[in-house]
Amino acid sequence: MIFTKEKEITECKRKVSVGSCVSVLGAGAWGTAISYLLAKNGHNVLLWSLEEDVALDIKNLKQNTRYLPGVELPSNVVTTNVTQSTIEHSKIVFVAVPVKFVRSVLEKIREFVTDEHVLVSLSKGVEQKTLLLPSKIIADVFNDKVSVAALSGPTFANELVRRVYSAAVIASDKTSVCERITQFLSNNFFKLYKTTDICGVQVGGAFKNVMAISLGIVCGLGYGENTISFLFTQGMQEINVLAGFFGGKQETIYGLSGLGDVFLTCRGSHSKNFKVGKLLGQGYQLHEILEQQKMVVPEGINTLYSVKDIAKAGNLALPFFLGIREYLTDGKCFKVLLDSFMNMKL
Amino acid sequence: MIFTKEKEITECKRKVSVGSCVSVLGAGAWGTAISYLLAKNGHNVLLWSLEEDVALDIKNLKQNTRYLPGVELPSNVVTTNVTQSTIEHSKIVFVAVPVKFVRSVLEKIREFVTDEHVLVSLSKGVEQKTLLLPSKIIADVFNDKVSVAALSGPTFANELVRRVYSAAVIASDKTSVCERITQFLSNNFFKLYKTTDICGVQVGGAFKNVMAISLGIVCGLGYGENTISFLFTQGMQEINVLAGFFGGKQETIYGLSGLGDVFLTCRGSHSKNFKVGKLLGQGYQLHEILEQQKMVVPEGINTLYSVKDIAKAGNLALPFFLGIREYLTDGKCFKVLLDSFMNMKL
Repeated sequence: MIFTKEKEITECKRKVSVGSCVSVLGAGAWGTAISYLLAKNGHNVLLWSLEEDVALDIKNLKQNTRYLPGVELPSNVVTTNVTQSTIEHSKIVFVAVPVKFVRSVLEKIREFVTDEHVLVSLSKGVEQKTLLLPSKIIADVFNDKVSVAALSGPTFANELVRRVYSAAVIASDKTSVCERITQFLSNNFFKLYKTTDICGVQVGGAFKNVMAISLGIVCGLGYGENTISFLFTQGMQEINVLAGFFGGKQETIYGLSGLGDVFLTCRGSHSKNFKVGKLLGQGYQLHEILEQQKMVVPEGINTLYSVKDIAKAGNLALPFFLGIREYLTDGKCFKVLLDSFMNMKL
Repeated sequence: MIFTKEKEITECKRKVSVGSCVSVLGAGAWGTAISYLLAKNGHNVLLWSLEEDVALDIKNLKQNTRYLPGVELPSNVVTTNVTQSTIEHSKIVFVAVPVKFVRSVLEKIREFVTDEHVLVSLSKGVEQKTLLLPSKIIADVFNDKVSVAALSGPTFANELVRRVYSAAVIASDKTSVCERITQFLSNNFFKLYKTTDICGVQVGGAFKNVMAISLGIVCGLGYGENTISFLFTQGMQEINVLAGFFGGKQETIYGLSGLGDVFLTCRGSHSKNFKVGKLLGQGYQLHEILEQQKMVVPEGINTLYSVKDIAKAGNLALPFFLGIREYLTDGKCFKVLLDSFMNMKL
């Protein structure tokens, strides 16, 4: 794998004051990778993990052996608890916990956060009860007091920390916030594009796994590449419809955070969601697959359940994704669904 | 592989008069597959091959052993020469020869063609000398006398003839022409979408191989999935820029004939162009690859050469595709190109 050499990174001069302090909440693969990046860019990172053993690993071994094994973290990544002092010392807080934990984690820090803080969502998904995107959960918890940004794009964590050329989109209503975050994160192997379409930027990441599960099922059922490519195009149009519901723009959906991330998820051999979908299509039960693969319910399954509520709330036409949901939850024959789909006017 | 059963096809009633006669010029994989489809839909197909031995095969063995082996052609596919009688008997003529032969083949039939004829382009590419899309070559040869349509989409020929669910787009300035061709081609395993954006429909098919070669090179050079997904998104935007030059619409580019076909070409393991690109990226010379793989110069290489002329003619910004071209033809270091690319404002 081609990567950027260490000395090239240090040559990349930072415009922000090096040595400044940022917080990262969540030490999964992506939270850890962003911590690595920030630290390599010269910042002091306070990294908080939901899981105590992961925090201990990072402290003692300088590695996140569970979620990002084999990568030595720089000495300026320090594990921390979410305390008043942590939040007061870092005006930029990256939120990298799974969507279902975003609200409860933010509530822990609510009292310490001021209107000087910028909260940057790295989470991908939709809150099941409220159907809110992560940036909206942040705005909700802090009553619109803080500045909010969202980062999303086609970036496998294990490639970013190996300094593979990567690109993503940073979004905020305020362009000055985009500029500031870009100065912290970008370097000569990580390129950031800026946009004000904060809702649009989060939609691709939220639904890419629905696409991966769905195409995986179609593949597992034995359909060919022609069918998969047809339904991929249809799925992208449905993600576009979903973007309309969330207030995002079409041009964002066909950019890096949308199409780019969906392509990565559906092409790459790394996708858990595609794999689970394929096994589901081959006739295995979900619980069998999870047991056999030693994994938890993948994000795409949960989001697929939300799609029905979103379609209802927005009166949206999403025949492919809803067809897959019916196949999964009601045991409908997918061939019958596809037959009607082939003949329907779209 | 799931396919539609024989009896289900015959149940699919044709609205056009079954038994009508159509011509297909070109007996490559795609021309043969479309002949198969038309014949299964009840039409009499006059199939003309550029290569005499292929014509003999089809006549004697009822198979195109060179381009579509293992598929028995129905008895209502008949090989033919391009004569006055052939063209007079079929008011619909499908043009399925490689782009570089389209003009010379059409010139053979020019004197027999009347304003009652509909010519449907199945060819994908751009004429190198004139930078014309196939539909424009047709219009040029016949002085806009005939009706013109173009068919394009994510369809591997060998899957279509195995009756794998497939979909494509049929385009013509005249919606009545789209309707008529749809009645000939569509059935319960082949769905057609209609559009009047005839230029836009041909752009995806023309440049998908440029994308496949380009991403293949990036992969062969050792870059990761993050880089490939980033450059895929950039490439789609460049195809969109190219569509603007040819007078096509963005919505068409992100539909089946654009994104769908590009996805098929870059995801599928069947792509010759991706394979050749990968080997080029690994450092093999083109002539070595062609010798070793026993193949002719793939379409994507030829189109890549045209991209520079198109960029010049339209004053277009196409940094990724032109960078790949420079890498290929001038031996420029791709890492240097990518470095400048990572830091450029797009």
